[in-house]
Parts: sequence; C-alpha cells; structure tokens
Amino acid sequence: MESISYIIDTLYAIFAMTLIIFMVPGFAMLEAGIVRTKNVTAVLTINTLIYAIASLAFLLIGYSIAFGDFGSDSMSKWAAFMFQMAFVGKVVNIMSGGVSERAKVVPLAVFTVIMAAVLYPLVVNVTWGSNFLDGTILSLSMYDLAGSTVIHSTGGWALLAAILIIGARKGRYTKEGGIRVIPASNIPLVTLGAFLLWIGWFGFNGGSVGSIASKDNADAVALTIMNTNTAGLAGAIMVACFMQFRYKKLDLTMILNGALGGLVAVTAGPDLYDIYTPILVGAIGGIIVVFGVSFFDKIRIDDPVGALSVHLLNGIWGTLAVGIFASNGSDITLLGQVKGILLVAVFAFTSSFIILFIINKIMPLRADNDEEMQGLDVEECGLEAYPEFKRAF
Amino acid sequence: MESISYIIDTLYAIFAMTLIIFMVPGFAMLEAGIVRTKNVTAVLTINTLIYAIASLAFLLIGYSIAFGDFGSDSMSKWAAFMFQMAFVGKVVNIMSGGVSERAKVVPLAVFTVIMAAVLYPLVVNVTWGSNFLDGTILSLSMYDLAGSTVIHSTGGWALLAAILIIGARKGRYTKEGGIRVIPASNIPLVTLGAFLLWIGWFGFNGGSVGSIASKDNADAVALTIMNTNTAGLAGAIMVACFMQFRYKKLDLTMILNGALGGLVAVTAGPDLYDIYTPILVGAIGGIIVVFGVSFFDKIRIDDPVGALSVHLLNGIWGTLAVGIFASNGSDITLLGQVKGILLVAVFAFTSSFIILFIINKIMPLRADNDEEMQGLDVEECGLEAYPEFKRAF
Amino acid sequence: MESISYIIDTLYAIFAMTLIIFMVPGFAMLEAGIVRTKNVTAVLTINTLIYAIASLAFLLIGYSIAFGDFGSDSMSKWAAFMFQMAFVGKVVNIMSGGVSERAKVVPLAVFTVIMAAVLYPLVVNVTWGSNFLDGTILSLSMYDLAGSTVIHSTGGWALLAAILIIGARKGRYTKEGGIRVIPASNIPLVTLGAFLLWIGWFGFNGGSVGSIASKDNADAVALTIMNTNTAGLAGAIMVACFMQFRYKKLDLTMILNGALGGLVAVTAGPDLYDIYTPILVGAIGGIIVVFGVSFFDKIRIDDPVGALSVHLLNGIWGTLAVGIFASNGSDITLLGQVKGILLVAVFAFTSSFIILFIINKIMPLRADNDEEMQGLDVEECGLEAYPEFKRAF
Repeated sequence: MESISYIIDTLYAIFAMTLIIFMVPGFAMLEAGIVRTKNVTAVLTINTLIYAIASLAFLLIGYSIAFGDFGSDSMSKWAAFMFQMAFVGKVVNIMSGGVSERAKVVPLAVFTVIMAAVLYPLVVNVTWGSNFLDGTILSLSMYDLAGSTVIHSTGGWALLAAILIIGARKGRYTKEGGIRVIPASNIPLVTLGAFLLWIGWFGFNGGSVGSIASKDNADAVALTIMNTNTAGLAGAIMVACFMQFRYKKLDLTMILNGALGGLVAVTAGPDLYDIYTPILVGAIGGIIVVFGVSFFDKIRIDDPVGALSVHLLNGIWGTLAVGIFASNGSDITLLGQVKGILLVAVFAFTSSFIILFIINKIMPLRADNDEEMQGLDVEECGLEAYPEFKRAF
Repeated sequence: MESISYIIDTLYAIFAMTLIIFMVPGFAMLEAGIVRTKNVTAVLTINTLIYAIASLAFLLIGYSIAFGDFGSDSMSKWAAFMFQMAFVGKVVNIMSGGVSERAKVVPLAVFTVIMAAVLYPLVVNVTWGSNFLDGTILSLSMYDLAGSTVIHSTGGWALLAAILIIGARKGRYTKEGGIRVIPASNIPLVTLGAFLLWIGWFGFNGGSVGSIASKDNADAVALTIMNTNTAGLAGAIMVACFMQFRYKKLDLTMILNGALGGLVAVTAGPDLYDIYTPILVGAIGGIIVVFGVSFFDKIRIDDPVGALSVHLLNGIWGTLAVGIFASNGSDITLLGQVKGILLVAVFAFTSSFIILFIINKIMPLRADNDEEMQGLDVEECGLEAYPEFKRAF
Repeated sequence: MESISYIIDTLYAIFAMTLIIFMVPGFAMLEAGIVRTKNVTAVLTINTLIYAIASLAFLLIGYSIAFGDFGSDSMSKWAAFMFQMAFVGKVVNIMSGGVSERAKVVPLAVFTVIMAAVLYPLVVNVTWGSNFLDGTILSLSMYDLAGSTVIHSTGGWALLAAILIIGARKGRYTKEGGIRVIPASNIPLVTLGAFLLWIGWFGFNGGSVGSIASKDNADAVALTIMNTNTAGLAGAIMVACFMQFRYKKLDLTMILNGALGGLVAVTAGPDLYDIYTPILVGAIGGIIVVFGVSFFDKIRIDDPVGALSVHLLNGIWGTLAVGIFASNGSDITLLGQVKGILLVAVFAFTSSFIILFIINKIMPLRADNDEEMQGLDVEECGLEAYPEFKRAF
C-alpha cells in the first residue's frame, strides 16, 4: 500500500506539473497578444528565456535553498522537484509581462537568475519550505496553499519595483493628464493564453494539495480543482456584467483578466472553502481587477497586461480571504495572514528593487527611445513577429 | 482495494475533465479562425462567456436536475461533478458557432443560462441521469456512451432553432440563388482548434466509461480512446480523398470538419465496436459532413462553421450506428436508438425554439444591419481582434 | 497487485500518449509559423494528413510488422497500441517540415503511407520490437530509450533523401553564392508549437520507460522527465548565450530550435543520466543546431525549419552520448551505439530515397515554378491561410 501511494502520487505530481508547464505558452500567448506587434518577439523571447533560466537556476541553486535538498518519502523526489520547478518561472512571468514594450530582454534574464536562484527560494523557505525563521518572531503561520502570496504577490511586488525603476511606456500618459489607450494586437492569442493559464491552474492548485493517494486527499484534490475553477468562472462573469452594465461593451481582455483575478484570489485556500464561497472570492477578485486597472493608470503606474491588478492585488485579497472565510476551528487567523502578506511584501519588494536597481546601473533595463518607438523586436531579437503582414499604422 | 479504486478513478476523472476543458480554447480557436476578422472578438467573447455561465449555472441548478444531488460512491463527488460540468458548455458552443457573425453576445449568454440550468439537464436526466421518465412509455433505452445524441444532437437542434429564428448572414445567399463563399480568416487557428477538440475527445469519450479501476474497465477505456481516435482519422482521410478526387483541392477546413464529424459519429458507442468498425463509422461521418454542408447551403440554412453537419447529422448517424453495428447479444436495438434520437430531437428543438423566440422578443438575437456590416467586434466588445493588421478588403 | 499495476500503467500510457498527440498541433503550429504566409495552409494540411494517414496505416499494417501482434500483459493492449501509434506520424512530421514551401501535399501523403506501414515499422522491429535480425551479425544492441535514432534520425535521413531529390526553394541560394534569408511569418505560432512539442516530449520520453507501477519505475519515469526537460533548458540557454555574444540578437527561432535540439539529444538515454549530465548533452545539442543550420546552408541543403540540425544531427549526437556518458557497468558500448546509428542510417536513407525517387517519377514531389512563386496554398488547397490580411510584400 505504501508503494502504491508512492506510485500514484508520483504519477499525480507529473500530471499536475505538466499542466503547469502549459502556463509557459499560456503566459507567452497572453502577453504576445496584448502588446503591440512591434514588441511581440521580444515578449516571446523573454518568456522562453524565463522558463529556461529560472528552471535551471532553481535546479542548480534555488531548490536546495527552499527545501534543503532533493528528497521526498511520499513520492519520487524527481517528481517532487519537477512540480516545484514548474512554479518558479511563473513568478518572473508575472513581472516581465508588466514591464513589456520597454524593458530589455537581457537585464530581465539576469534578474531571472537571481529571482529563481535566491529571492523566490527564500520566500518559499519561510512559507512552504524548511523555514529558517522557525522559532523567531518573524516565523509565519500564513495559510497559502498554492501561492496567492508566495507566487502571485511575490511576482507582483517585483513588478511594482521594476515599474518604479523603468517608468511608463512613452506616450502612454500625456502631459495633460490623459491616458492613451494602446489596444491589444491579437485577441485570439490573448484568449488562448488565458485558457492555457486557466487549465494550468488545475495543476497548480490541485497539485499543491501534495497527495491524492487517500480517500480524503482525493476529495481534497477534487474540491480544490472544483473551487479553483469556480472562482475563475465567477471572476469572468462578474467583470462581464460590470462591463456590460457600465459601458455596454463586453471588453474581452478585461473579462479574461477578471477570470485570472478570480483564479489568483482562490489560490490561497481552495481546499478550505465550501463549494459556494469561491463564487464570492472570485467575483470580488474580478472587481478588484477592474478597479485596480483604473487605479494604477490613475497613479501612472503603466502595466500593459494588468498584472498588478491580477496578481498583486488579488494575491493579497486571496490570502486575506482565507483568514476571513476559512478561519473557523483551525489555527488560521486573519492576523497570521496579514503578517505573512506584509513580510513577503517587504522582502519581495525591497530585494527586487535593490537587485533591479543594481542591474539597471550595469545594463539599463529600459530600451532607449528610438528602440522603443521602433519596437523591441528588431533591435533585441532581429526578428519581426509578423514580417509579411502590413501594418495599419 | 476499494479505496484504491476511489483514488484512481478520481485521478482519472480529473485527467479526463482536464482534457475536455482544452475543448474550450479548442472551440474558441476553431470558430475564431473560421469567421471574418471583424467578428473574431465577438466569437471569442461568447465562447468565454459560455464556459463561465454554463458551468456556473450547472453548478448552481443544472447538476441537481440531471443527477439528483452531489454524490458518488465510486470516486470523489467533486471529481464526478467536474467531469459532468466540463460537458455542459459544449452544447452551447456547438450552437453559438453556427450563428456567429450575426448573433449578438448578450442574448446568447441569456440562452446559455437556460440551456445549462434546465434544458440540457433535462436531456441528461432521461438519458444518463436519474430518469424521471422511468416506467413511462417515454422511458429511453438508447445507448449513447458520451453524447452523440445527448451532447451533439442537442446542441445541433438548438442551433437549427436559432438559425431559423435569426436567418442567414447578409449577402450569403444572393437573390439569383447564388451562394457567396466567405473564406475562413485564419487557418492556423482553425487547425489548432480542431486538434484541441480532437485531444479533448479522448477525455470526453474515455472518461464516459466511468471508471478505469479494474482490468476490464482499463481495457474499455483504452479501447474507447483508440476507437474514438480511429473514427477521427477515417473522417479526415475520407474527406481528403473526396476533395482531392472531386475538386483537386485539399480543402483543409473541410478535412478537419470531416475528422470532427467522425469523432461525433463514434461518440455514441466507441466502447462497443471492434477496432475496425470505427473506420467505417468515421468515414461515413466524414462524407456526411461534405454532403451536409452542401445540403444546408442549398436550403439556405446559413451555418458558418458547419456545425449542423458535424454535430447534428453525425450525432444522429452515430447513435444509429450503435444500433446497426453493436446490437448483437445486447439489449441495444435500432428501434431504441431511433426512439432516443426522436425524443431528444423533439424536446431539444422545441424547447430551444420557444426559449430563443421569447428571448428574441425581449432583446433581438440578431445584430442590426450596420453592426453586421461593420462586424460585431467594435459594437459588442469595443475591441478589434487584430487592430494593427491592415485588411485586404 | 498485478491488476493494480495493469490499471495504473494503462492510465499512465493513456496520459503519455495524450501528451504526444499535443505534438501534432505542435509540429503544425511550429512549421506554419516558420514558412511564408503563402504556404501556411499547405503545411497545415500535410501535417493533418500525416497524423491521419500515418496512424491508420500503422493500425492496419505497421504495428504488426513492428511488434508482431496486438498484445501486452502489463497493460491494456489498446493503450500499448495507442502509445506506439502516437510516435509514427512524428517521423514524417520531421521530414515534411524540411521540404515545406516546395513539396506537394499528395506525394508526401503517399510517402506517409509507406513510411508508416513499412519503413518505420522495420526500424522499430530491429530496435524496440520483435527484432527479426536477432542472432544475425546485424543484430543491434543500441540503447535508444525514446528514439534519438529510431524516431529522429529516421525522420532526418528521410528528409535528407527528400531534399536531395526535391532541391532548394527557388531564390534561396543565389548564383553568386549568397543565401537569401526568408524570415518566419508568424513568431507566436512558432513559439506555441515549440512549447507544445516540449510538453509532448514529457509523454514521449516518460512513457517510453514503459511502466510507472513500481517504486523503481516511478523514479525512473520522474527522472526521465526531469532530465528531458533539463536538456531542453540547456539547449535554449546555450543558443541564447551564443546568439547574444556573437550577434547581439536573441534570435528566438534559433533559441527554440536549440531547445528542441537538446530535447532530441537527451531522448536516447534520459533514464540513464544523473541530473547534471543532461545539461551538457542539451547544451551541446543546442550548439549543434546553430552550427548545423549554417553548415547545411553552406552545402546548399535547403531546410526551412532546421529539421536536419534539430533531428538528424542531434539524433546522432544523442545516441552517441549514451555510449559516452552511460556506458559504465552496463552492456551499452559506444561501438554498439555507432553500429545502431549506422544501420538505421543506411536503411532509412536508402529506403526513403528509393521510395521517394519512385514516387517522384509517378507524381512530381515538387510544385512547378508558378505554383511555388504563388505559394502552394491556393493551388493545392484552394485556401489562403490569412485571406483578409494585407501582405507587406
């Protein structure tokens, strides 16, 4: 029986990991669809490099910082590694999307090494890992099943740091206080990417239960996946209703971001909710996206893909939601959740800011004006994304 | 051992469900690739909303109409729910594709609620579910493993009702009796979508066996998936040969629809056939698509994606095929199959027609002429699908 | 317990097979993105037909040539078949990509029948199958877990034969010795395709371990997938560094081909390496792609997608690598690997050349000049890939 559990959990971890890897093309397609055609290749290149670099850096350095060493009794240690490895790139994907159309590829690749080898592993260490803070006053009791804070907020704080250093895209905010709308260039890619992410989330959250090899665990896994999905549904529907009633336009990019917002929000505790609570958690997540996008534009934080609203704000909301809706009878407290959010916030923002600041001194993060106007594809990659298609402008 | 079955079947249902969810981007890409660029965002929006709305409506209302209540002894009840939930949106996807380029998003979304909450659950109730007709003269003995009738014909009848109410796209049929060819705008998307559907079918049909946790069931699942695939192969090859010999043109959209027609046709009984019968079932399915598309154009039923031929005609053919090829020694009869087809036809067509008729009175299903000429994307969604690409016309 | 193994291995084979089927849209998107817009539909059509024809030919004829008959004790024989069937089309996909933009669809479809029904099954017979050469001097002892030689080199040799018969694209090489760069038309599709292939590789190599139903096998499967992935990472990173230091341009198509080269290279022995060796195997694989692409252009072998470098050269390198890095204590020898490479090379190249030569006499493999200039889509398929998009040239 022990050996059966080992086998089934290994198979299950491989399955869950594979779904998460679908998020690599997921992020790539989503972001490539949102940016202008002149920056598409650069976005795809950094997404590809993030997966390659973050995964290898985590294999060589990060994993042992987070978890001590390769090892697992309950499943193959290689499957356990692959499952964790699949997470790493996501943190930087979240960040790279928000600085697209003006951040250069190579410095982002350098930052990826440091994030995947050191920064993210330290966050994991004190939340899911061996916890070097154990016994100290900073020791965390936050519940965060699959990373509303550990993954999404960490990536979001890194993004905020990056935007503060890099600034907005040229022409995005006018001197008169106006905001220039820059439409997504390829809506089918955005849609495809969003659904690949959605499906990947089943592996992300479902796999984070850690085992499927008992009746209780099988139920927990299935409930987790069901609740994850439900929050995505609710986020999409909430935003669709809002857009329709407010603007009479069903803005699809916003609806999809609403779904993703709901998915981020439920990620901290999908195993703890009954089957109806995720409707509320996800619907609020969708609304947070709508208002978050306006808010960041108002304060001139330029985030082309809405990553701050989807990942940072909803990462926070989702972690709080566990404290609000799932604290009865357990040792989860709203205070414990807040403490976790704050500690990760301070660490992730500060460390990312410092590292990015240093990188920026050595090799500018931002493309120069000519390159930005021309688009990053030609200068950075030597490849236009759609060279045969005539541009409308 | 019981607990092992429970675990394995839960894992298997989650796997199968995940494959089916790939059909969401599958339908979205297929349809977005077939319609003209000016209607792509609208098509993607309704596909997204169908998944969100149908799934949530099924969770809140439909599932208990179909099956009584959440519950399953043989696997996690949440996994059992998710598997069934993954089916629901498909019924409306089938329908929405066929009315694309002129049907408005919001009334289709309203219809989605009713279809997923009531109409489809009633069909499931009397076929796969608790069967409130049991003991009456209308009680069905139709064999339909994964929904040639329950899913595909139901969606197809709803589509026929919708087309009768909405009418053809402007300019599609000329007064002189001619048919204007409207070419697909993005063939790679069509191909991607078709293969995502194909892969999803493995989960759809394979998962419908219900269990993999015995040697016999493992064989039944593997045979089901193999036969499902074979019918798709045969449909594609048959249509390719036909197109090549008849027109000297390998029309890829027709070949892919031929594969999908074969897949629909085999869906009623892939577990019952030997490994060669699906070649015949699928090849006939392919031919039905070719002639069906011409037939519907001749009677001026305008179905841009060929859904009536793929899903309705092949749903009927597939259900009959079980009666023809798999009735020996079992209690499956051709008559029983015909009875099932007819009962579902009458119910699905009539109820859809009535609901759509009422919706149409309250909020017109059809875009007005200006909007249709301009394309639905700008008016409905406020987003062009490819704003930077210059149109050739 | 026996029955549990049977069930789990059936489920595992179905999972692995499904991932491999994602390589069908993977190859299709990759190749459709690389060729010019005027040849996209033709590329998608042949990819679709290859899957359909190769799979059906293998079902009807090839499988029994390779393995004797349908049968397996350790899992459902239908799952065992489906897993093997998923491989077949890949061999021809490798080949069709390299002759795209000038090879006609119908003769390639005819070649697909012969490759899948006879040639590839003969290669499998003497390597993984019943081995009719057993006991003769030609009997092989090559270790090739998932087909660096059996799949990738076989496809590569067939491609080389095809290019020698068909020749280069018009205008690719000038009389003055210049090489005209023909840029990829759709980089997002290339990226999507590459990642679908990458994910498919987890099933390809992981499934080739043959069983997951013991602790040792679960470890072997997980290690195989981990090492497979690592080689892909290393290939991508190596090429990215090379391109950046040498040209200051991160050519994404080359980076992705570097990843694929690493994946091909590791395929012969991912279960035999420790977790660091694949970094070396994959990095060398990436470099082989970079220099291979230049080399084949220098000798005027025109291969639009780089398939000879990715699949043929790395298939050879990967098979040698097993002999170099994994021969200690086992009966694997470098000599045995070389013998296998050579025997498959002679057979695959010669037989493909003869068959293609004969086909070419009956129906020319190459499109005529007008058709090539106009693009194959209109003449072969009657469908432009992007009819509404205005071409820049």
